[in-house]
Amino acid sequence: MILTVTLNTALDLTYRVPALVPHTSHRVTEVLERPGGKGLNVARVLATLGHEAVVTGFAGGPTGAVLRDLLSGLPVRDALVPVAGNTRRTLAVVDATTGDTTQLNEPGPTVTSDEWSAFLASYETLLGDADAVALCGSLPPGIHVGAYAELIRRARAAGVPALLDTGGEPLRRGIAARPDMVKPNADELARLTGSREPLRATHDARRRGARTVVSSLGPDGVLAATPEGTWHAAPPAKVPGNPTGAGDSAVAGLLSGLVESLPWPDRLTRAVALATATVLAPAAGDFDRTSYEELLAKVRVTEHAPAA
Amino acid sequence: MILTVTLNTALDLTYRVPALVPHTSHRVTEVLERPGGKGLNVARVLATLGHEAVVTGFAGGPTGAVLRDLLSGLPVRDALVPVAGNTRRTLAVVDATTGDTTQLNEPGPTVTSDEWSAFLASYETLLGDADAVALCGSLPPGIHVGAYAELIRRARAAGVPALLDTGGEPLRRGIAARPDMVKPNADELARLTGSREPLRATHDARRRGARTVVSSLGPDGVLAATPEGTWHAAPPAKVPGNPTGAGDSAVAGLLSGLVESLPWPDRLTRAVALATATVLAPAAGDFDRTSYEELLAKVRVTEHAPAA
Repeated sequence: MILTVTLNTALDLTYRVPALVPHTSHRVTEVLERPGGKGLNVARVLATLGHEAVVTGFAGGPTGAVLRDLLSGLPVRDALVPVAGNTRRTLAVVDATTGDTTQLNEPGPTVTSDEWSAFLASYETLLGDADAVALCGSLPPGIHVGAYAELIRRARAAGVPALLDTGGEPLRRGIAARPDMVKPNADELARLTGSREPLRATHDARRRGARTVVSSLGPDGVLAATPEGTWHAAPPAKVPGNPTGAGDSAVAGLLSGLVESLPWPDRLTRAVALATATVLAPAAGDFDRTSYEELLAKVRVTEHAPAA
Repeated sequence: MILTVTLNTALDLTYRVPALVPHTSHRVTEVLERPGGKGLNVARVLATLGHEAVVTGFAGGPTGAVLRDLLSGLPVRDALVPVAGNTRRTLAVVDATTGDTTQLNEPGPTVTSDEWSAFLASYETLLGDADAVALCGSLPPGIHVGAYAELIRRARAAGVPALLDTGGEPLRRGIAARPDMVKPNADELARLTGSREPLRATHDARRRGARTVVSSLGPDGVLAATPEGTWHAAPPAKVPGNPTGAGDSAVAGLLSGLVESLPWPDRLTRAVALATATVLAPAAGDFDRTSYEELLAKVRVTEHAPAA
């Protein structure tokens, strides 16, 4: 099975309003709730691809109970660890006139050191059955900034390849613990390396400790620096739609390709096809199956000269 | 005891953000949750004034459970009737830079006819112990627009004076069922009567069926047309602060004055002092006890000539 870790899970709310006008009152015309957090999204896509997916991280309070109830309707296994605090909500307010989204993210509950210890014990057990692990998203209050580095070292000790998808200081510390893969986007990469030149920054990130760096270039696909070579994979054309969740779908593509031992060009093709099919799906975070299958034949992969 | 009815209860959320900028992403720095809906606010103030207060209406789903849990910490009795749907949330986004609030209100769960019947049976029982009843706020989906008229007729049959605080068509239908009191604000009064001239509109509203009309004039106090005469009661000066909940505090003042058989000038003084002390309180919907007691001696009540 593939394990995904989401330390800062969320109940994702979407409010649709006719038009968002600050400092006025609005009637919300539509309310949607879904279990959220990057690792949960990754697991959902992995399950759709036919992989056994287990989600762990923290959930607590009334909002955590709603999240777990919604999760029970999905084909992923819930191994979330209870916390005393209330799981956070994220709210996307969609302006029906412009289609634009305004995002409001609660900070999440503070995790105690006892809760972190309980998580680590559960994580060790879950690693015993895992073919790969994804470590996804921001850290909740109370978790030390080196937490991902610690989880990567434990995965390596258990012989389980780890993919890290986070930003800022947790990424900087995590990459130094030598994960199998990191998947920064352009902003995370620039913050890590100081460079906005994708090829240079991707190679620089790799020298910091990751075995492979797959940089997300948004509508231009991904750039992968691996021990076997460097590739750029791009969709056949820019597509209109909502990019929410596209990065998580790419992670699911990379992880599934890893456990299936696909050659790099095929892994990257899958990642880009999934991300693009996610942008094309009507609901944020889902992916369009038909588009995905069509895109598998259309993603262009080009190999770069080896890094100097 | 005093019964308050809130058919469309809510969990009131407040998010504080550094600055609200539409179509961007925000970290919420502070999350507050409190049980909401106008009748719940009225009951909380009544309890603070030393009255036994019972709240009824509907609550359901995970949000209803959170609301009832928070309510259990307050000195009011919970007689809410369960519904299958999820109680709505209201969200106030406070911009810490400007202090302005952007309000987002969920529609509330649809109430079935069986749930409405269960409510009516419970309401009849509660009326048996009630000295007065307040009918407060909007109607949730599924409740017929004449619902307040029905509740007023039942209260009259049980010999319990009813105060109606709502707007639009529910107010128009309700007033025709001859409640003891209605408490419209300027907008509700204008919508009902077509007039924005307070004295004319208040007398017009009274001719539509209410025994007494107490019109809220915002910072200018209240105007009351009663069988015993017409009075204007005003605070000594305009006060800075947050008017959220001021109208609910005024209703609590009017109801407590009713069951204590206070003369009209004293009832109106209490209502205006409570409303003003609510504007002055740091937290929306609370009232400042010291200010309230000082204001009791300072509210100016003037009698108007009888209506033509």
